[in-house]
Amino acid sequence: MEINSIDEGMRAIDETLHAIVNSDVDILQEASQHIISSGGKRVRPRLALLAYLAAGGEDLDTAVPMAAALEMVHTATLVHDDINDHSLTRRGKITVHARWGNTFALLTGDYLFTKVYELMAPYGRPYNSIMSDACIRLVEGETLQAAAAKAGNMDREIYKTIIGKKTASLFEAGAEMGARLAGADETIIKALTRYAYNLGLAFQIVDDILDIIGDPETMGKPVGADLAQGRGVMAAQNGDMLAAHPDGDGLATAVAETDPVQQMMDRLRTSGALDIARIQAEETAQRARTALEKIPASPARDELAALIELVLNREK
Amino acid sequence: MEINSIDEGMRAIDETLHAIVNSDVDILQEASQHIISSGGKRVRPRLALLAYLAAGGEDLDTAVPMAAALEMVHTATLVHDDINDHSLTRRGKITVHARWGNTFALLTGDYLFTKVYELMAPYGRPYNSIMSDACIRLVEGETLQAAAAKAGNMDREIYKTIIGKKTASLFEAGAEMGARLAGADETIIKALTRYAYNLGLAFQIVDDILDIIGDPETMGKPVGADLAQGRGVMAAQNGDMLAAHPDGDGLATAVAETDPVQQMMDRLRTSGALDIARIQAEETAQRARTALEKIPASPARDELAALIELVLNREK
Repeated sequence: MEINSIDEGMRAIDETLHAIVNSDVDILQEASQHIISSGGKRVRPRLALLAYLAAGGEDLDTAVPMAAALEMVHTATLVHDDINDHSLTRRGKITVHARWGNTFALLTGDYLFTKVYELMAPYGRPYNSIMSDACIRLVEGETLQAAAAKAGNMDREIYKTIIGKKTASLFEAGAEMGARLAGADETIIKALTRYAYNLGLAFQIVDDILDIIGDPETMGKPVGADLAQGRGVMAAQNGDMLAAHPDGDGLATAVAETDPVQQMMDRLRTSGALDIARIQAEETAQRARTALEKIPASPARDELAALIELVLNREK
Repeated sequence: MEINSIDEGMRAIDETLHAIVNSDVDILQEASQHIISSGGKRVRPRLALLAYLAAGGEDLDTAVPMAAALEMVHTATLVHDDINDHSLTRRGKITVHARWGNTFALLTGDYLFTKVYELMAPYGRPYNSIMSDACIRLVEGETLQAAAAKAGNMDREIYKTIIGKKTASLFEAGAEMGARLAGADETIIKALTRYAYNLGLAFQIVDDILDIIGDPETMGKPVGADLAQGRGVMAAQNGDMLAAHPDGDGLATAVAETDPVQQMMDRLRTSGALDIARIQAEETAQRARTALEKIPASPARDELAALIELVLNREK
């Protein structure tokens, strides 16, 4: 296989993802194909391939399994998240647990995690360490999020820690692995990881904004789902909102007569919290832009720059 | 650290397990320490260290992280299994999901899986591939088991496939990695993996027998738990028992007036199914003994031989 462009690379990643979940255990194969086929933005593998090229890499083939592994981590996480969040739809399709039940969804998520490991096995050090560190931080971020939602103590500081761990870490790992595979020097690696980490923060903040204001049809999932779980950027922006959370303290009862999530969403839309979140997304995006300035000009660097704007302006 | 005996090696493994789950996310650290502290037989890491020595290895330190990773895989699986089986006790202690809830138990299992990856990262190929293959087979085995329990179509053939994948694969991987780390030739590696695979089969068959006849206090968990999940060796040994399963077909209703699991256990104890299972355990143990004959005599080989008898005669 000779891969000569990002588009070809992204196609190869899709083929890799589908081909590797070839279990002879029907349920694992079907559930895995189901979630992989549901698409998604594939922003993590795209970022990894672009980082590889921007760092001077010339053989995209070498980066494809690693980039596919990043998407596989993300996919495994989605399957387990949807169990914990009781989400019924994802990317416009029924979730794995809604279709196959919690037991098989849990096992499908585990299976996808083992496939990350299989995809990464050929790379050796330091790649396996970079990936395992990112996976650890991701699970830690998910756990902090669930803990803050349960305790009802989400604030801006905790929110920042959470999105750094659960989202930005994997972006950062992708950029670092891409740059290292390309043989880049430490200055370039550092610039690309800084870019990617901040891109990841912006991505998650926008994700949380879309949870409030997105069009459910465009999103392929109900809006307000994250909010109903007591998480998301909005909860972090406004103390009042926390108090109004249905799982929160006594104040919740005051608004519980109608749909409390709907009420929170209405209040968030008018409270200024969305504006604060947009400013934060723009600030992190600006850090990503600044980091890119240290990378030599190339079509891949231009695409990394364009990715920032795509992340900021996306509608799903 | 200089490790000069199996006992020292096993202590080092315990220290490694405790030390590596040092998350600054309290719940992950506490839940991980909880399950690791609950002990267990540590048969997989012991097997791996013994295989390393029996294959001529002279520096046990090199095998410790790998052996700890094997136990970590097993531990992660237990946490997720207990969610799916709704088990309330494990090794005489409350299960992670019973204490911390399903969401955090799911995340703790994921966290422990990421720690397998961290422990194995330094080894490179082929070790990462051997471990990822074993993890894939393990999840496949768990899935087949859940599928057979749900469909009520467990038979001897399916049972054999399941215990091979879910238990024997990890035993086999431990022996293979131990032998390869010791620099053994392919004949020795093959003999040790054959030994370990069959030891794993015997171990699981005995485990399933103990689920029926074990003393709950010695076991640290209720007996009949596996049976209640529609799995276990007994279901595989006797078609009648399947029909009597509470989740099974119409015949179940005939015995449902008292406790159906208790009734099944009584019937299994008197049906001869236990005798068949014991014969199977002895047959696989004999294959393990035969495989060991190809290994040069050594104290470690003697301990591997003794391990077979321990597995056959254990009471918990």
